[in-house]
Amino acid sequence: MKTNAGRFFEDFAVGQEIIHAVPRTLSGGERALYHALYPACHAIHSSDEFARSSGLPEAPLDGLIGFHTVFGKTVPDISLNAVANLGYAEGRFLKPIYAGDTLRSVSEVIGVKQNSNGKSGVVWVRTTGLNQRDEAVLSYVRWVMVKKRDVGSEAPETVIPKLNPVVAADDLPVPKGLNFSGYDFDLAGEPHRFADYEAGEIIDHVDGVTIEEAEHMMATRLWQNTAKVHFDTRQRPDGRRLIYGGHVMSLARALSFNGLANAQLIVAINGGSHANPCFAGDTVTAWSEVLDKAEVGAPGVGALRLRLVASKGGAVGALKDGVGKYNPDVLLDLDYWAFVPV
Amino acid sequence: MKTNAGRFFEDFAVGQEIIHAVPRTLSGGERALYHALYPACHAIHSSDEFARSSGLPEAPLDGLIGFHTVFGKTVPDISLNAVANLGYAEGRFLKPIYAGDTLRSVSEVIGVKQNSNGKSGVVWVRTTGLNQRDEAVLSYVRWVMVKKRDVGSEAPETVIPKLNPVVAADDLPVPKGLNFSGYDFDLAGEPHRFADYEAGEIIDHVDGVTIEEAEHMMATRLWQNTAKVHFDTRQRPDGRRLIYGGHVMSLARALSFNGLANAQLIVAINGGSHANPCFAGDTVTAWSEVLDKAEVGAPGVGALRLRLVASKGGAVGALKDGVGKYNPDVLLDLDYWAFVPV
Amino acid sequence: MKTNAGRFFEDFAVGQEIIHAVPRTLSGGERALYHALYPACHAIHSSDEFARSSGLPEAPLDGLIGFHTVFGKTVPDISLNAVANLGYAEGRFLKPIYAGDTLRSVSEVIGVKQNSNGKSGVVWVRTTGLNQRDEAVLSYVRWVMVKKRDVGSEAPETVIPKLNPVVAADDLPVPKGLNFSGYDFDLAGEPHRFADYEAGEIIDHVDGVTIEEAEHMMATRLWQNTAKVHFDTRQRPDGRRLIYGGHVMSLARALSFNGLANAQLIVAINGGSHANPCFAGDTVTAWSEVLDKAEVGAPGVGALRLRLVASKGGAVGALKDGVGKYNPDVLLDLDYWAFVPV
Repeated sequence: MKTNAGRFFEDFAVGQEIIHAVPRTLSGGERALYHALYPACHAIHSSDEFARSSGLPEAPLDGLIGFHTVFGKTVPDISLNAVANLGYAEGRFLKPIYAGDTLRSVSEVIGVKQNSNGKSGVVWVRTTGLNQRDEAVLSYVRWVMVKKRDVGSEAPETVIPKLNPVVAADDLPVPKGLNFSGYDFDLAGEPHRFADYEAGEIIDHVDGVTIEEAEHMMATRLWQNTAKVHFDTRQRPDGRRLIYGGHVMSLARALSFNGLANAQLIVAINGGSHANPCFAGDTVTAWSEVLDKAEVGAPGVGALRLRLVASKGGAVGALKDGVGKYNPDVLLDLDYWAFVPV
Repeated sequence: MKTNAGRFFEDFAVGQEIIHAVPRTLSGGERALYHALYPACHAIHSSDEFARSSGLPEAPLDGLIGFHTVFGKTVPDISLNAVANLGYAEGRFLKPIYAGDTLRSVSEVIGVKQNSNGKSGVVWVRTTGLNQRDEAVLSYVRWVMVKKRDVGSEAPETVIPKLNPVVAADDLPVPKGLNFSGYDFDLAGEPHRFADYEAGEIIDHVDGVTIEEAEHMMATRLWQNTAKVHFDTRQRPDGRRLIYGGHVMSLARALSFNGLANAQLIVAINGGSHANPCFAGDTVTAWSEVLDKAEVGAPGVGALRLRLVASKGGAVGALKDGVGKYNPDVLLDLDYWAFVPV
Repeated sequence: MKTNAGRFFEDFAVGQEIIHAVPRTLSGGERALYHALYPACHAIHSSDEFARSSGLPEAPLDGLIGFHTVFGKTVPDISLNAVANLGYAEGRFLKPIYAGDTLRSVSEVIGVKQNSNGKSGVVWVRTTGLNQRDEAVLSYVRWVMVKKRDVGSEAPETVIPKLNPVVAADDLPVPKGLNFSGYDFDLAGEPHRFADYEAGEIIDHVDGVTIEEAEHMMATRLWQNTAKVHFDTRQRPDGRRLIYGGHVMSLARALSFNGLANAQLIVAINGGSHANPCFAGDTVTAWSEVLDKAEVGAPGVGALRLRLVASKGGAVGALKDGVGKYNPDVLLDLDYWAFVPV
């Protein structure tokens, strides 16, 4: 049997290192496609000139291009037999990624816990994206529920990793040279600076996008994510193709430009839930909540901790019901840090 | 309120300069996407070698890539609350745009006229696209009908700008070095030269393209055009997404290759009407009428003034009814100048 | 009449050379789009670093990008009035194609045979793709059935070219410098090497992709293939758009990664049939049969001769019925050589 059947729960052991296949060179082509697939307008990723005026050598690729590329490589090894993608933590965008960079991914298994039903278990991995100079550009933890190959196989010793609920402000990676002291608010698109945002504030991003099958499949393929359920109508009883959660993430982040145009760089992901499935035909809207603010050791740069919520028709600010369950229209609840001008 | 609500009629005053946000670096990625989204075959934009044999350093991006990019930047400031896009004039493609260039847009308000109903008004702006060296690469006038914020607000003094009905042949911008004296008609695809076209001649471009939602949305996003009605099925009572007029423009121009393969460079837009709305599922065809011819001060180069009509099923040559109203199947009526080999 | 009506059977004569129009410069944009349109994962085309470790200067574009580009240029001259695309032979990928290369195509007519019904005939052409240094990068023979302009016109003398049923192993073009002796199987994605494949072996590629209209049209346009039937719902009585056979070819080749991840480079096409039409909504799967193996004069490199079959729902290994007719679910039967690590 030459085809990859994917790992089952029994195939994971704490301490294991997994080298993921298919390194990928990114170019201006991926940048252009990102702009075609999402309404992405953050100036630092759109304009080499704007990036230069911010102290960078040219426009870095959107951080989520790096995230999706690094994530996509892990799918054949980690989540081909996953039942659910349960969460993210300790995501840090360690270095900007530029056109011409080649990314690859490695993961370490840092936790396992068999479910009480004996049919599946939870696996925690810490994944690192590396560039062609073997520099880490991205690191994050995710945990997934994975099927067991054999219900009768013995449960491994439970190891649940200790994860920080939030990346500390001091640990936010600052791209070398980043400097917002000459920031051009006109070119960025909005006048709101660090001081204008307050914890607890909710921002309605107003715009909505109705999703098409061709779009989410093109995006998901671009990241070389091979999970069958995104592409093949035979995979689900209802014949619908489940949209890759990262597609909703990028869509919501792009929509957040309207109200958060100056949240230029994603620098950390504290956590995230794909609360409900998304399908073609859904109209996705987004709102944000300012969770926290922090100073950053770079000229003119501050950090906002933001909750980004993608919804298919829900009210702005509505998230969970009385018992803490996500409302059925909530698609994504993402907790991240972004850099803004002070 | 941090979200951009767009300008209303009252927010425009003659003489106002508007700096549009989000500069954009274009690359080979945008060129490739343009070829994927439109059946674009004009050799000077397709091949670096062909462009070099025409005296240019490499293949310039299609002039309409520049137009859409510059136009897209103006949408949040000019037409977010527009009721209708009424017309274009005095469009000039001042310099070729190459992969690696970064474009931004500025507009000057040159006219305002409140409508007699008191609910809206017409705004004229002259928009200039600038590259990273602050060179103007494109300039055009457009006028739009914009809602008033408050029906009761006072009407401004009416100013209607004087606009040339056609860009004079002497004002057509010639790219530095352009030289068609060694033009290769085999590689360009057709033998027809300047002398073969006569004013009044009508050309049926024969081919048709049935449009998909994913295509027009990807195109419109690529130009960072954020007008809601193109993306969000909740914006119109009929649940349909209105296709960006520029998508039809590029589609018709690409279809015109068949019969106008040698109309290599768009150099001016004299005027244009988006005569009727276009929706996914429409099959777009195109025909052209030669309106005028002119000599140009560059070796081997002549200019054709062309009417380019996009239609969804109408007869070739059919444009308006007896009282001057566009036929319901006409989508676009564009009056432009292009350079051809003599 | 300025529009291209295409050549009819009478317009072809043995010995004729046809210079095809519209040279095309390929870039990282085309590479990115290829990854968005197909689930392409072969490492040598995905990563500059992987290609360098294999002795190439950077990642070459997928061989099928070259094939589609060269093929697309021939459509207006060869197959605009074709009734059927009958076969391929003697396809050789002579040199790798890199981002920045400009391709053009020339064809020589090498055979003609009028059909007994007098309405059409078969034309054989040998097409060569050339880069900007006039180096041949690709050569193949294809034959098509073309309509006659006039049923009454006299039949030409029948010439049927002698074609090799398979490209001999000694004739497989080896890219200069290619060296698989330091091949990284982890990064490539599978451990299977030359010795692990046996003639007669059948590989189920498992994955499936449901095709959308927007995807196949974007792909086909990207190759500047102008055949009307792919784009225009008015071309067939059933209103469906026929999918370009090369789209299925690329899709099947990309799906074959799962089981043939190390079949890195397509180097020859021995033959191929588009067995049945493909339409949007079809879910395409693929399987391969190892037909032959050969040694190659490059370090660490071996060649596999493979049959690649694309199907819409058929059983793995099922191809033809008792009288040699393709099963109705078979879309493509392609016979090619690929290089693998020994």
